[in-house]
Amino acid sequence: MSIVIRNGTIVNADQTFSADVYCEEGKIVAIGNDLDVPSSAKEIDASGQYVMPGGIDPHTHMQLPFMGTVASDDFFTGTAAGLAGGNTSIIDFVIPAPQEPLMDAYHKWRDWAGKAAADYSFHVAITWWDESVHADMETLVKHHGVNSFKHFMAYKNAIMADDETLVKSFRRCMELGAIPTVHAENGELVFQLQQEMLSQGMTGPEAHPLSRPPVVEGEAANRAIQIAQVMDVPIYLVHVSCKESLDAITRARNEGQRVYGECLAGHLVIDESVYRNEDFEFAAAHVMSPPFRSKEHQSALWKGLQGGNLHTTATDHCAFCAEQKAAGKDDFTKIPNGTAGVEDRMAVMWDSGVNTGKLTMNEFVAVTSTNTAKIFNIYPQKGSVSVGADADLVVWDPEGTRTISAKTHHQNVDFNIFEGRTVKGIPSHTISRGKVVWADGQLNVEPGAGRYINRPAFNPVFDALNKQAELNAPKPVKRN
Amino acid sequence: MSIVIRNGTIVNADQTFSADVYCEEGKIVAIGNDLDVPSSAKEIDASGQYVMPGGIDPHTHMQLPFMGTVASDDFFTGTAAGLAGGNTSIIDFVIPAPQEPLMDAYHKWRDWAGKAAADYSFHVAITWWDESVHADMETLVKHHGVNSFKHFMAYKNAIMADDETLVKSFRRCMELGAIPTVHAENGELVFQLQQEMLSQGMTGPEAHPLSRPPVVEGEAANRAIQIAQVMDVPIYLVHVSCKESLDAITRARNEGQRVYGECLAGHLVIDESVYRNEDFEFAAAHVMSPPFRSKEHQSALWKGLQGGNLHTTATDHCAFCAEQKAAGKDDFTKIPNGTAGVEDRMAVMWDSGVNTGKLTMNEFVAVTSTNTAKIFNIYPQKGSVSVGADADLVVWDPEGTRTISAKTHHQNVDFNIFEGRTVKGIPSHTISRGKVVWADGQLNVEPGAGRYINRPAFNPVFDALNKQAELNAPKPVKRN
Amino acid sequence: MSIVIRNGTIVNADQTFSADVYCEEGKIVAIGNDLDVPSSAKEIDASGQYVMPGGIDPHTHMQLPFMGTVASDDFFTGTAAGLAGGNTSIIDFVIPAPQEPLMDAYHKWRDWAGKAAADYSFHVAITWWDESVHADMETLVKHHGVNSFKHFMAYKNAIMADDETLVKSFRRCMELGAIPTVHAENGELVFQLQQEMLSQGMTGPEAHPLSRPPVVEGEAANRAIQIAQVMDVPIYLVHVSCKESLDAITRARNEGQRVYGECLAGHLVIDESVYRNEDFEFAAAHVMSPPFRSKEHQSALWKGLQGGNLHTTATDHCAFCAEQKAAGKDDFTKIPNGTAGVEDRMAVMWDSGVNTGKLTMNEFVAVTSTNTAKIFNIYPQKGSVSVGADADLVVWDPEGTRTISAKTHHQNVDFNIFEGRTVKGIPSHTISRGKVVWADGQLNVEPGAGRYINRPAFNPVFDALNKQAELNAPKPVKRN
Amino acid sequence: MSIVIRNGTIVNADQTFSADVYCEEGKIVAIGNDLDVPSSAKEIDASGQYVMPGGIDPHTHMQLPFMGTVASDDFFTGTAAGLAGGNTSIIDFVIPAPQEPLMDAYHKWRDWAGKAAADYSFHVAITWWDESVHADMETLVKHHGVNSFKHFMAYKNAIMADDETLVKSFRRCMELGAIPTVHAENGELVFQLQQEMLSQGMTGPEAHPLSRPPVVEGEAANRAIQIAQVMDVPIYLVHVSCKESLDAITRARNEGQRVYGECLAGHLVIDESVYRNEDFEFAAAHVMSPPFRSKEHQSALWKGLQGGNLHTTATDHCAFCAEQKAAGKDDFTKIPNGTAGVEDRMAVMWDSGVNTGKLTMNEFVAVTSTNTAKIFNIYPQKGSVSVGADADLVVWDPEGTRTISAKTHHQNVDFNIFEGRTVKGIPSHTISRGKVVWADGQLNVEPGAGRYINRPAFNPVFDALNKQAELNAPKPVKRN
Repeated sequence: MSIVIRNGTIVNADQTFSADVYCEEGKIVAIGNDLDVPSSAKEIDASGQYVMPGGIDPHTHMQLPFMGTVASDDFFTGTAAGLAGGNTSIIDFVIPAPQEPLMDAYHKWRDWAGKAAADYSFHVAITWWDESVHADMETLVKHHGVNSFKHFMAYKNAIMADDETLVKSFRRCMELGAIPTVHAENGELVFQLQQEMLSQGMTGPEAHPLSRPPVVEGEAANRAIQIAQVMDVPIYLVHVSCKESLDAITRARNEGQRVYGECLAGHLVIDESVYRNEDFEFAAAHVMSPPFRSKEHQSALWKGLQGGNLHTTATDHCAFCAEQKAAGKDDFTKIPNGTAGVEDRMAVMWDSGVNTGKLTMNEFVAVTSTNTAKIFNIYPQKGSVSVGADADLVVWDPEGTRTISAKTHHQNVDFNIFEGRTVKGIPSHTISRGKVVWADGQLNVEPGAGRYINRPAFNPVFDALNKQAELNAPKPVKRN
Repeated sequence: MSIVIRNGTIVNADQTFSADVYCEEGKIVAIGNDLDVPSSAKEIDASGQYVMPGGIDPHTHMQLPFMGTVASDDFFTGTAAGLAGGNTSIIDFVIPAPQEPLMDAYHKWRDWAGKAAADYSFHVAITWWDESVHADMETLVKHHGVNSFKHFMAYKNAIMADDETLVKSFRRCMELGAIPTVHAENGELVFQLQQEMLSQGMTGPEAHPLSRPPVVEGEAANRAIQIAQVMDVPIYLVHVSCKESLDAITRARNEGQRVYGECLAGHLVIDESVYRNEDFEFAAAHVMSPPFRSKEHQSALWKGLQGGNLHTTATDHCAFCAEQKAAGKDDFTKIPNGTAGVEDRMAVMWDSGVNTGKLTMNEFVAVTSTNTAKIFNIYPQKGSVSVGADADLVVWDPEGTRTISAKTHHQNVDFNIFEGRTVKGIPSHTISRGKVVWADGQLNVEPGAGRYINRPAFNPVFDALNKQAELNAPKPVKRN
Repeated sequence: MSIVIRNGTIVNADQTFSADVYCEEGKIVAIGNDLDVPSSAKEIDASGQYVMPGGIDPHTHMQLPFMGTVASDDFFTGTAAGLAGGNTSIIDFVIPAPQEPLMDAYHKWRDWAGKAAADYSFHVAITWWDESVHADMETLVKHHGVNSFKHFMAYKNAIMADDETLVKSFRRCMELGAIPTVHAENGELVFQLQQEMLSQGMTGPEAHPLSRPPVVEGEAANRAIQIAQVMDVPIYLVHVSCKESLDAITRARNEGQRVYGECLAGHLVIDESVYRNEDFEFAAAHVMSPPFRSKEHQSALWKGLQGGNLHTTATDHCAFCAEQKAAGKDDFTKIPNGTAGVEDRMAVMWDSGVNTGKLTMNEFVAVTSTNTAKIFNIYPQKGSVSVGADADLVVWDPEGTRTISAKTHHQNVDFNIFEGRTVKGIPSHTISRGKVVWADGQLNVEPGAGRYINRPAFNPVFDALNKQAELNAPKPVKRN
Repeated sequence: MSIVIRNGTIVNADQTFSADVYCEEGKIVAIGNDLDVPSSAKEIDASGQYVMPGGIDPHTHMQLPFMGTVASDDFFTGTAAGLAGGNTSIIDFVIPAPQEPLMDAYHKWRDWAGKAAADYSFHVAITWWDESVHADMETLVKHHGVNSFKHFMAYKNAIMADDETLVKSFRRCMELGAIPTVHAENGELVFQLQQEMLSQGMTGPEAHPLSRPPVVEGEAANRAIQIAQVMDVPIYLVHVSCKESLDAITRARNEGQRVYGECLAGHLVIDESVYRNEDFEFAAAHVMSPPFRSKEHQSALWKGLQGGNLHTTATDHCAFCAEQKAAGKDDFTKIPNGTAGVEDRMAVMWDSGVNTGKLTMNEFVAVTSTNTAKIFNIYPQKGSVSVGADADLVVWDPEGTRTISAKTHHQNVDFNIFEGRTVKGIPSHTISRGKVVWADGQLNVEPGAGRYINRPAFNPVFDALNKQAELNAPKPVKRN
């Protein structure tokens, strides 16, 4: 099957220009004006619209077993919803239980993902440490296309990685050319504050943000970054939600350190007042970690995107229904943490970012797609409208509008944190490896159409860091 | 004439890949493996070498009349030397004398540049202010391809722009979609310190850096940036030489402001000890403004490039021979300010940046070429190895070496600030709009081969700033 | 006349302790428990109260001729109101018109101040420059007890000092051991923005803050500080109102520079929403420069006081009645700039600072009195409850309350920016050089009771700076 | 015994003035000009000299059992040496072994200290955690005059406190009104780097600083500060040695947090080149943690003292002889960590701080004595020349000189890190609670003359923090 998109304006991270795009067998094979293509090619008229790389959500949790339940969007429903929103790839997470062999967990998740409608890849979490973990990391990198490992600094007594694990795993990452990523919250502080809240009778969702104040995130972010600096490895921070952790990133970047930051569409536009809503269901539906923050943090995050200290946007899509959230009715620490959004990220970012002049269109492409592809070393296969790239495209109608609602969304969850928000700028068509899967409001997806994305180790920054490390190698003093 | 470069590794700012490059009529027309090209095409074998966008030096002063003399490299010798060093474009400066009509000055410089061997463009300096300046700025932008205006905050009693001029000119730039650029040094402080130095008997070149300490630059940088912020316009700082001005840029960028910084190859590797050399000729040969700084500033500038707070590298190429420098034998304030380097920038940046792991190869391309093209809105015509771009290319031999010396360089000046430095990584071939002008140590240039580069106004950032300004437009309160 | 204050708790900047205080002939002569004093001594029972150094307001403008009118509080009414609020000294300003000899202006102000009810001193403004100014500065320092000079960086076409004047005056201050102080706002930007506002039909008071945004203050603060650094002189910034200028101070202090910051009680508790009030009189009554700011700036200022980056609190007391403010009914640039508050500062600072835990009591004393005395070199004569100090005391009732109102205040103005605010913590007694001038709500003051405070030059910081300057003195290189 | 010091200039932290000082029974009982004192009083002529509060070294380890040996200065020799250097008090450390009851350790150290020649107090280290520790902290604060607890973030597998312990202990400190103090180095990183160094054959002392780079300290400093912020408690960082940890303090203080920093005389003047000395004994003699740093860090620390971000100076006096240091001949991790200096701190600080203009004399007093007394709540009993204070005084001869040497010092150790340094400014007399213990080069001390200093809990900052905490107390949302 081949497709030609005519009359559109191509927007890449580095430039904007008018041209047709022709795709065959899942790849972009030609870009130019008045392309001469086979008459069999399906033609899409993109007049007045933008043709951009499909979104990549670097942070989702489909069908995650967590806090005694399982996230309600599976790899099919979740990726399908993503396609409806212009998102053509996800990077999800393999999260081994403590003591569970990494390879076992990896294969389990690969099985689950077999039904994905769009392309996917996996960060693998390091939740414990021994020699087998050390060995399996190499296997994953060399034979399974994994080039990033995740570390939870929170969730004490569960999947939290302590400093010893961080130090050893970061060093291992450096050897393997893989990027360590962290969920940055100081788990000891969270635990202490949770206990104090409960003992003071603060049991509702309004205690959730109080048990995880911004400084708790800022501390962990700083710690992870400094450990990465000592270990000579780049680092990627997921869901940066507040000024404090952004500041830690910014300080390090200003010193030339190779640090990358991700923020969530939700954190950019939703504030912490939701937790004081008198409706438990509404408040609980917003419980995720790190929590939504006060408005000054939103402002800071936007500046982080503008100034180049934040690089990617994600959703941390992890859907739980009201019934599931009800587990924490009397104890906020038992509310399953997570919110959805893989379908909404692109439109929310465009509406609140591009329409307001906070971001240029090129920056929009960079932070929704290209930067993720570069950092995780799958560029220009993904994240680029260029000849030879995968035909993962979104045709963007800047005049189209949609009022976001759980009633109409494609996500398998009964709540939408963006409920009622009318966005201007929506995908008219989504193309996944050359196939039109979303057009004019209709999904045309199939389970298993998605493919696993192999991500090679050693992105270009590693070479530079290795050269530096060599030049700085310690030399002993000769003594009698 | 057509050329095919075979077997090389293409390095762009965003990616590295192996492919052949085919050029016809001054443009790149095909990139791919095993390209099928006319047999007439000249073939260059780039095995083991990198094919990169030719360098763009955004800051040169060819044959500049300054401080009672004229810079010794003219537009032919200067651009030819640039080509020998892998540099295929320059942006020079039109500098009207106070009261001189801008258009007169512009045409004078265009005449002088007619003999250039490589492509060129012009920033135009705003050295005074009245309604004619206001009007001529529009003419230059709309009819002469100028999209940047330069402001000297130093050089009191000569070309210094005071705050009133900055405010008015920046506002005008915002209306026209042009980028204001500044030479940031507080001219009042410099003047005061110069007088004090002379009155204390400090007449030699060692007084030069003391009369222009880093804080003098930092203050002006901060002031220019803040004025730009109030005026809603992006800003570009030339020759950032010290931590203080870099910090001003960094602070602003961290706040999301659109600020760009340029640094000079010289400031990255040469320190201020040169001014205390006992040989007057040697010391005077290094007199430029801002001066060379202590080593901690070099370290800061490298971090600025790594962290994305500095964007371009230049030379401020402005050559004066020993005889010219001698004018300040008894009074350092009379030494013509300027040093050469257009021929050496690329190799110095590679050797001290890439070979040490400070920069990746892609970052090297970004800071020597691509970023300048983007900021000044001539990308991807310049700064990119891509189909449709100008065939301005350098074939880079990472194993080649050269010991820099005034005895062998092609610059028309009797001194080289990099004298004796052996660099590893040199251009084996330079191609200027499809013509091989430098190959294996031989220049093949002709006067007038260079063309003027039209630079369109309103780079993408202006759209974003205008949207913001609209949203923030003041609204009067209704009162009785 | 002698007084003994019994049973109180003495609060100084450095400590808190219980003791009686005995005063004779205007001085504190004994401090101790169960002091044995002459029976003729008037006794004040301070049980449950604090005995603290009387406030010093380092920034007032009594009967100032400004913008075509004269401030409504004269030196008698203004100082009397200050005493009612626990404030026993002011430092006012001599402001020569451009070209007016400094000595003439100085004597004029001294005459006006002859009727003051409390002690006073004068900063002298440098509003223009020539050799006579240079000479008169020395006369003022050596013969008239002046150790500080003020520079307005705003008010273009009136009293604005340009960079040349700043540079020369700061250098002169360094020679004389006097502290330069600045009103930091970039006058060129203010002027430009004012013109733009008016041309856009923004003529009401709501345009006032828009014509002087925080960045305008931040730029000037940074510039003044950097000039002071180059000139090797300490510097004091008056009425720091926003994060931007505080940041400039903080950066410099973190680098070890001797920089002092003052903030106003009003800026700490009132926000910019007042300017959008639909009542012109209300809005205009708040017009002062720099303007009130958004709440985030208030928070920043409090942190500045806590962290030691701001040192003093003042009022910039400059009272204008509604009739006077009406001059700008149709043009906000014509509204006389100024607000009152000398009577309210101490109580507002206590209520909003100490009662909330932002400041300790000792810090309250430091920022309302002691630090001003130290910086302007009149400590411990002023600013200290210690033997030998002037008997300028306030007996503070932490349980007393007052609802601030123009109807009941002693200031000669028909508006109070703190109207309706109920403060807890008020002076029960004020003692001015040994005389009870305020007791239980009654003023007992007389014109002319106040004395001029001579302030000696060269506070201790100058010695240190001079030692540094000597060590850093430039040395010429010997050349043939 | 009574003493009168005549004709001197008194230098306190807040002022300088000329007066006599009269002491009786260990207290200062009168200060004034031409004091009338009993003829029996011993008279000291301080003409041309300064009379200052005796130094307080807040960080010493006398006869510490550590790394398999015991520090060579015991409480008698160590305090005596301190007196010879003008230092009249120390705060040493009780360091329980893990699982050792706090009270046992406390009593052990009190016994050891019985022979001290000068006054002393104890910080108590929290090296492990259980309910008994929680309980003993209260006993120590309420019944034993302890108001500070120390936490080692380094020394893994020995006395390191992990985050859980920090969180719990800091919270406990807040309840008790005690100040947590930390040795800030990330113990996991140190351990990892030590192992890597050894495995690379880096076994000599030059590996010591490489195993504890500045970032390792900066991370821990930031973490401790952030935990303190969350726990609403002030915090004190011992031996801040580098820019990174100073920056963490500075950031927090700029935000208004109550953070205090101590630096060591050694870190201010000695750089890391000592570790590459070819003489093992010399290099090993400098092994302490954190290690000496490069010169840029010295410069930063001085700025910290000037800007008020560092507050106290100490020595971490912990003397080990060459024979003891030899234990690490083949493995730098076995070299006992520690250097001496209690005798030299005052003179080194004066010579390198006051003589160079970095500090005023008042600041010298603040950072060598007064600030420690204030932070640890023993002011003005200690740290002040004022009536009622302990007669702990030093008469300082600003013209006197001494060349520091292990051959002549009074410390019981065979090495002096300041060897060969000639300082100008030395104590001519030291007076310890009213007794002349050092005069004109002669010590007159006796074991057991020193007394234990009780330090009350809840310094004034706690009140403020508690008020804030109350105002910010969480309030539950009412839901159906």
